[in-house]
Amino acid sequence: MNFQQLVTARHSAVNFIKDFVMTEEDFKNIFDLTKTAPSAFNLQYTNYLVIMDEGKKERVRELNFNQYKIHTASAVVIVMGDREGANRENAEKIYGPMKMLKMMDEVDYDTTMKTIENFNAELQKNPANFDVEIMRNAGLHAMLFMLSAKNFGFDTCPMHVHNIESLRKEFNIPANLEPVMMIAIGKSVDKERPRGYRKPVGEFVQFNSY
Amino acid sequence: MNFQQLVTARHSAVNFIKDFVMTEEDFKNIFDLTKTAPSAFNLQYTNYLVIMDEGKKERVRELNFNQYKIHTASAVVIVMGDREGANRENAEKIYGPMKMLKMMDEVDYDTTMKTIENFNAELQKNPANFDVEIMRNAGLHAMLFMLSAKNFGFDTCPMHVHNIESLRKEFNIPANLEPVMMIAIGKSVDKERPRGYRKPVGEFVQFNSY
Repeated sequence: MNFQQLVTARHSAVNFIKDFVMTEEDFKNIFDLTKTAPSAFNLQYTNYLVIMDEGKKERVRELNFNQYKIHTASAVVIVMGDREGANRENAEKIYGPMKMLKMMDEVDYDTTMKTIENFNAELQKNPANFDVEIMRNAGLHAMLFMLSAKNFGFDTCPMHVHNIESLRKEFNIPANLEPVMMIAIGKSVDKERPRGYRKPVGEFVQFNSY
Repeated sequence: MNFQQLVTARHSAVNFIKDFVMTEEDFKNIFDLTKTAPSAFNLQYTNYLVIMDEGKKERVRELNFNQYKIHTASAVVIVMGDREGANRENAEKIYGPMKMLKMMDEVDYDTTMKTIENFNAELQKNPANFDVEIMRNAGLHAMLFMLSAKNFGFDTCPMHVHNIESLRKEFNIPANLEPVMMIAIGKSVDKERPRGYRKPVGEFVQFNSY
């Protein structure tokens, strides 16, 4: 499918075909495209917890206003940002291999490490800024996830995530990972349906100044 | 170009061909695809200020660490979230036409309005939550913008936005619009370059629980 067809075909699914099974291989294909998403300093904060297990998925449903689409979806995917994503250890994991492969030299490496250190220090000072930073990266990532899913024939619906502390306990989510969104995924019951009203471009885009 | 090729071809551009002119028509094409992005309750918070004017673009550059890529880009696009995006008036603008076109009935309309009212009241209570909400929607939107740009042959680079209050004054950005990201856009000088290291899927995806 070309890009324009794919973008036009993607809708938020409201109901999924119950008992349609997705495999880890399906998710691997989707994530192999998703991982090309850009991120601040290429730090790749965004993590995912994919819940396919029927019983566990029902538990997510209970924690999220009992939404029916979680029940019929093949899986529910928790999108999370890593609060330790900009620390030295993680930065070295990303840039170490690039230095080794001579994609960057020593000087460039040291400058980049210093820049990230300052960036991280700023973020750690203000948790509210860090929440926004995590969300910025996860938002970009999650859109690419949904489009990649559609590319492999799967439908999605992005959702808010609720009762985060209960969710954390239930699934042993590490303290550094912050759930910021959920995505229900599977095969949509509706083949086609009219898209919700969208504002014309002139209403949300302005040129040069207001 | 099919989706997989497009996603693989998209890189954050580090340098653009100076003096390559993009037109409002180019942007209209890009935004016509971008507007299909999902948003919370379809409220479409995300707004854009496209700065193509050379002098104005240089002013954005000055306010953002003098970054060279803003100088060579055809335009710099300020991505913003609308703090009034979930209020009654905006909700009516989105759902009014759907009621009129009988895409939803009176009862459905009233329930939706009530749900959005409660949602907005929660957000207005806590500005930090609202910042994250704005970012969630803008992140999804901005990724689709960058992919749509690539579909029409343009390269992009997402960037943090700095000195927001000076920027607001300079471009008369209304108080309700909150700049959350910038995207430099144009034609990349590099035809191809190696992608920065990406973590393998197993390092950022977990199945069923930790």
